Amino acid sequence: MSKEERFVKQITAKSEDFSRWYLEIIRRTEMADYAPMKGIMVIRPYGYTIWEHIQRLMDRRIKETGHVNAYFPLFIPESFLKKEMEHLEGFAPEVAWVTHGGQEELEERLAVRPTSEAIIGSMYAKWIQSYRDLPVLINQWANIVRWEKVTRPFLRTTEFLWQEGHTAHETSAEAQEETLKILYLYKDFVESELAIPVIEGRKSARERFAGATETYAIEALMSDGKALQMGTSHNLGQHFSKVFDIRFEDREQNQQYVWQTSWGVSTRLIGALVMTHGDDSGLRLPPQVAPVQIVVVPISLGNWKENVLPAAAAIEKELREAGFRVRLDAREEFTPGWKFSEWEMRGVPLRVEVGPKDIKENRAVLVRRDIKKKDFVALAALTTRVKETLQEIQASLFDQALQFRRENTRDVADYPEFKETIESKRGFIRAWWCGDEACEDKIKEETMATIRVIPLKEEAGPSPRECVCCRKKGRELAYFARAY
Amino acid sequence: MSKEERFVKQITAKSEDFSRWYLEIIRRTEMADYAPMKGIMVIRPYGYTIWEHIQRLMDRRIKETGHVNAYFPLFIPESFLKKEMEHLEGFAPEVAWVTHGGQEELEERLAVRPTSEAIIGSMYAKWIQSYRDLPVLINQWANIVRWEKVTRPFLRTTEFLWQEGHTAHETSAEAQEETLKILYLYKDFVESELAIPVIEGRKSARERFAGATETYAIEALMSDGKALQMGTSHNLGQHFSKVFDIRFEDREQNQQYVWQTSWGVSTRLIGALVMTHGDDSGLRLPPQVAPVQIVVVPISLGNWKENVLPAAAAIEKELREAGFRVRLDAREEFTPGWKFSEWEMRGVPLRVEVGPKDIKENRAVLVRRDIKKKDFVALAALTTRVKETLQEIQASLFDQALQFRRENTRDVADYPEFKETIESKRGFIRAWWCGDEACEDKIKEETMATIRVIPLKEEAGPSPRECVCCRKKGRELAYFARAY
Repeated sequence: MSKEERFVKQITAKSEDFSRWYLEIIRRTEMADYAPMKGIMVIRPYGYTIWEHIQRLMDRRIKETGHVNAYFPLFIPESFLKKEMEHLEGFAPEVAWVTHGGQEELEERLAVRPTSEAIIGSMYAKWIQSYRDLPVLINQWANIVRWEKVTRPFLRTTEFLWQEGHTAHETSAEAQEETLKILYLYKDFVESELAIPVIEGRKSARERFAGATETYAIEALMSDGKALQMGTSHNLGQHFSKVFDIRFEDREQNQQYVWQTSWGVSTRLIGALVMTHGDDSGLRLPPQVAPVQIVVVPISLGNWKENVLPAAAAIEKELREAGFRVRLDAREEFTPGWKFSEWEMRGVPLRVEVGPKDIKENRAVLVRRDIKKKDFVALAALTTRVKETLQEIQASLFDQALQFRRENTRDVADYPEFKETIESKRGFIRAWWCGDEACEDKIKEETMATIRVIPLKEEAGPSPRECVCCRKKGRELAYFARAY
Repeated sequence: MSKEERFVKQITAKSEDFSRWYLEIIRRTEMADYAPMKGIMVIRPYGYTIWEHIQRLMDRRIKETGHVNAYFPLFIPESFLKKEMEHLEGFAPEVAWVTHGGQEELEERLAVRPTSEAIIGSMYAKWIQSYRDLPVLINQWANIVRWEKVTRPFLRTTEFLWQEGHTAHETSAEAQEETLKILYLYKDFVESELAIPVIEGRKSARERFAGATETYAIEALMSDGKALQMGTSHNLGQHFSKVFDIRFEDREQNQQYVWQTSWGVSTRLIGALVMTHGDDSGLRLPPQVAPVQIVVVPISLGNWKENVLPAAAAIEKELREAGFRVRLDAREEFTPGWKFSEWEMRGVPLRVEVGPKDIKENRAVLVRRDIKKKDFVALAALTTRVKETLQEIQASLFDQALQFRRENTRDVADYPEFKETIESKRGFIRAWWCGDEACEDKIKEETMATIRVIPLKEEAGPSPRECVCCRKKGRELAYFARAY
């Protein structure tokens, strides 16, 4: 089988086997490939370009809110992780250990960072002396290693890329304000740029980051009805500052421990794009992060290289100069139909077709990837219509995902209904919870559903207000789901 | 001693102790700090922002020449490195080894990448089947670990950041063309953006990258007279493609091994900026990569917060809106003189002062960091003059460095003169070499000077054309120097 034939071969239908569909899409679109080591992937240029757009758009938001970037070491001495036992226990099963440097065995083994609170805390202790040094608002873009047993490209891999913000503040209130500011920054980013609606909220104590006072998260519903955590923002309180002795002289000249936060999003967001927007024909990428926003396909009939290709090239040039990410597919060895399906699979939001008849009529054909709708556009109006259409696609992908989530968010009032719903329909379940971990554990064990978030704003939940598990008073409304 | 007092304390003079001056500058300007592990540094925001500008400007050039970014794994199985013995032997003494994942000992230990030829080669073998798949032009931005015994911030550290390009081609000629294209891309980048003149050329066989057919490099002269390798571009021939079995079907349907290149620059470039342009007052940063290009300092006399600050703020706003990276230093706790010396130390290219008298005269004072020259400028002409002045500073820093290099590049015709020159004057020495490694070794052993590059273009060398060491026929003209 030649490399080319693979493109037309039918990919597994999403409805038939979601998991296989996901893996096939990622390989066939050349977003990622498996490295020859278990659980490790290579991010290929098509996938990495999406990450570059995510980085660019997120980095801008991070800087606009006053943060600066830095770079901390990959290796963390074991003794540093051990300083904070809860933190160590949370991460120890997942740590890769360096024991030798060159030919020599190290005196102390080094963790390959599973997260950077410990190493950053030790540096902040050196850098912060006075309230004048606060707040410290630092972010880093880095690779992270967690030795995972079960892996899936982009969603759970031994190595992944992320950004991790680490801040230090004078007061508890400021740290809490920062934690929520970032939570909403993440929400806005994911909804505006990735066109994925999320629910923001607080995690239960059991789902908290190891060492955090409070963990907040944004959660989205994938199109198979499972939830995906898209980003977390932790209020660390003074937990790490006491362990790493990060003290400052306050305005009254007293020694105080700083109040800290940490927060991150990762290459997992790329997996979320696939699982939220993809369909049986492949990816559907939001224009904001699509490596190619528009593909121009000349209809190759007759003398097309003389007649059609120059018109297609002129369109490509016009759109490129207008600032769009555009590609002209002038390959001779493929038919237009072949090219259509290849670029559909790759999720390019908009296709511009131009053929002999279109040239005669001074027009081009726009075809939207999201709803496969055709539109004839006069060449004079092309750039304007393309711009509008890309905005429509971005909005439409969000709306489609939001509608799906609404249809798949259900209130349940009792446990049998809970179990039945999670088994037959998945999706988010809104239910009351007494606040007792025993109920949380029982639900998880019996249904594989966990509390994804406890919403921050008051919501009218189902009636009666009783814990869906034990029937005692419902203390908190929670969103439950099976999750990745 | 308070944190503030440290700023005014005299730093070690460059002429007195260059090495100590270098380390002090880096710590005091908060470019970097030592991590609590030997040989590992933290890149603080001020240093990292310079790296971000280097990345941005270099990434643009890399993409404009048709390359795309991707991300390959941090870990490389030992067996992969072992496939290529010359490569393994070149890097084995510097490799950090991961032996445990979580609680389990790994069956095969993993190298933390010292460079990525082996892992990338194994992927290219999967991805490349036909000449239609070529060329493959991939770059990655990544962290690298080399277990160094003697370290120095930015110049030689256990972990550093870099970009590494890895390309595969149909023919040997194309690979050679790529190798040189990148060499000149690096030269143009370093000279235009970092204002550091470099000599481009070929390395001797002894200085070649482990596994390369030919290594090319750009070399600069630091202001202490030692050379620094600023970037390398390797023609790998078919060396790795034969080991990793990277074959393709050519246009005549024969199986061939691809021809490869690899090339990189690293955070070492930041060290080069310090050592090339810095003076006794601290850093002097080229405007193209300076985190802050302009600092606006209000002269705080009398009622300055009412009278002067609004004028300074208006200037800051005007310059920011014109696209400059500008900072207003409105801190109350420091005198203008203090601020001047702090920002001079941090290398900010241009200072704008405004005081009560300037306001009356409708002007501001521009002070260039590079030559400390003052210039009174009418407010109406401010943005234009600032733009011109920054261009002048960028050009002037290059010219100053070029002049230094010219004054410190010397032709020598015999070995006693060579030894005397390297000992008393350092700098580059141009001399003939017979091409025999015995002479190269002898020179290195006796003088600590190595062949930095053999220039690509014919140069009229010293007379007579005899090897500076053995007096046999001089086959190649070489630039010798002691190097970092």
